[in-house]
Amino acid sequence: MPLEVPEVVVGRLPIYARGLASLLEQGREVVSSQELGDQLGMTPAQIRKDLSYFGRFGKQGRGYNVRRLAEELRQILGIDREWTMALVGVGNLGRAILSYGGFMPQGFRVVEAFDSDPSTTGTKIGKVVIKDVSELRRTLSRVPVDIGIVAVPADSAQEVIDALASCGVKGILNYAPMAPHLPSGVLIQRVDPALSLQCMTFYLKSQPAAAK
Amino acid sequence: MPLEVPEVVVGRLPIYARGLASLLEQGREVVSSQELGDQLGMTPAQIRKDLSYFGRFGKQGRGYNVRRLAEELRQILGIDREWTMALVGVGNLGRAILSYGGFMPQGFRVVEAFDSDPSTTGTKIGKVVIKDVSELRRTLSRVPVDIGIVAVPADSAQEVIDALASCGVKGILNYAPMAPHLPSGVLIQRVDPALSLQCMTFYLKSQPAAAK
Repeated sequence: MPLEVPEVVVGRLPIYARGLASLLEQGREVVSSQELGDQLGMTPAQIRKDLSYFGRFGKQGRGYNVRRLAEELRQILGIDREWTMALVGVGNLGRAILSYGGFMPQGFRVVEAFDSDPSTTGTKIGKVVIKDVSELRRTLSRVPVDIGIVAVPADSAQEVIDALASCGVKGILNYAPMAPHLPSGVLIQRVDPALSLQCMTFYLKSQPAAAK
Repeated sequence: MPLEVPEVVVGRLPIYARGLASLLEQGREVVSSQELGDQLGMTPAQIRKDLSYFGRFGKQGRGYNVRRLAEELRQILGIDREWTMALVGVGNLGRAILSYGGFMPQGFRVVEAFDSDPSTTGTKIGKVVIKDVSELRRTLSRVPVDIGIVAVPADSAQEVIDALASCGVKGILNYAPMAPHLPSGVLIQRVDPALSLQCMTFYLKSQPAAAK
């Protein structure tokens, strides 16, 4: 069944999961699709349609059980377990990623890191010893990881993506601003801060930058 | 009118804009909400409802003019002009942001950068000379910027956000993994790679990490 769910529906599930987690913190036990829609700025019909891919969660006229729906979404999203990651590229961005505090609370852990710079390889950042990128295939063949993080310059990114794919990595988080050719069976998510900025400028465009 | 548009609707507009840009590249002139919905994994009703906040773009039964809708969305989003940004925090992440190639093509330009480390201030990265953070208020009062980028550790982020807000910065892109108290009138977008990973694990959870 999951294979038939449109990608953009999947993209909304973490939003639902966080909305529900926030309701749960407020002590809410039941929520209607109307209320959840108001909170998230979506039509109740879209929410019901999205959730209907995964079975029946709400009873007609009685709304959703917040705790149960939150837990089921965590299971559906696969975030009820730990995921291992290998980072490729330990320049400024890679170093920032290795010390980023926002992955672990969500169950994502960087277990290997690779770089080609001899002044970087062999050093340790956090709990991870940086290996030379020539060891990537051997290392990941021995101990496979779930996800690869690509933090190399745009012009080296395709090569790295291909190498990760050849080691059986099925998911890639791509920080390089480029549109990669996708190896078959590999899923790629781009981290694109410009997308976030474009939502902001919608609101900002009607206001001049205010001088103090 | 823009003030009445739910935030999550706004969050979908860049997706529509990119979808339309891609159709435009393929030489498409007209698209129905059904087709656009299929491409983006959304119901046609949701798309029509989202766009209806901004007036009538399509004629009943004739679909949308791709070029016109793409251009209007760029105007609505405010991405038909350049936006200036000030970066606070020039550690590893900040350095990566200063050399990131994905902002400029979208019209976002970092014009000032601040740090508190004396070994960093005074140095130049790209076209930007790093200033001491004590100069932030004076600098941004003289030449206001549109957007602030927060790339400091989580425990300093609130202070920086407050300082930017006091200089009249109305939009903040926050890389720190923390939930800030929002100064009134300031918009914050969080860059959260864990959200992207959570969409990926949905697909990955049914596959074991394959060993080569």
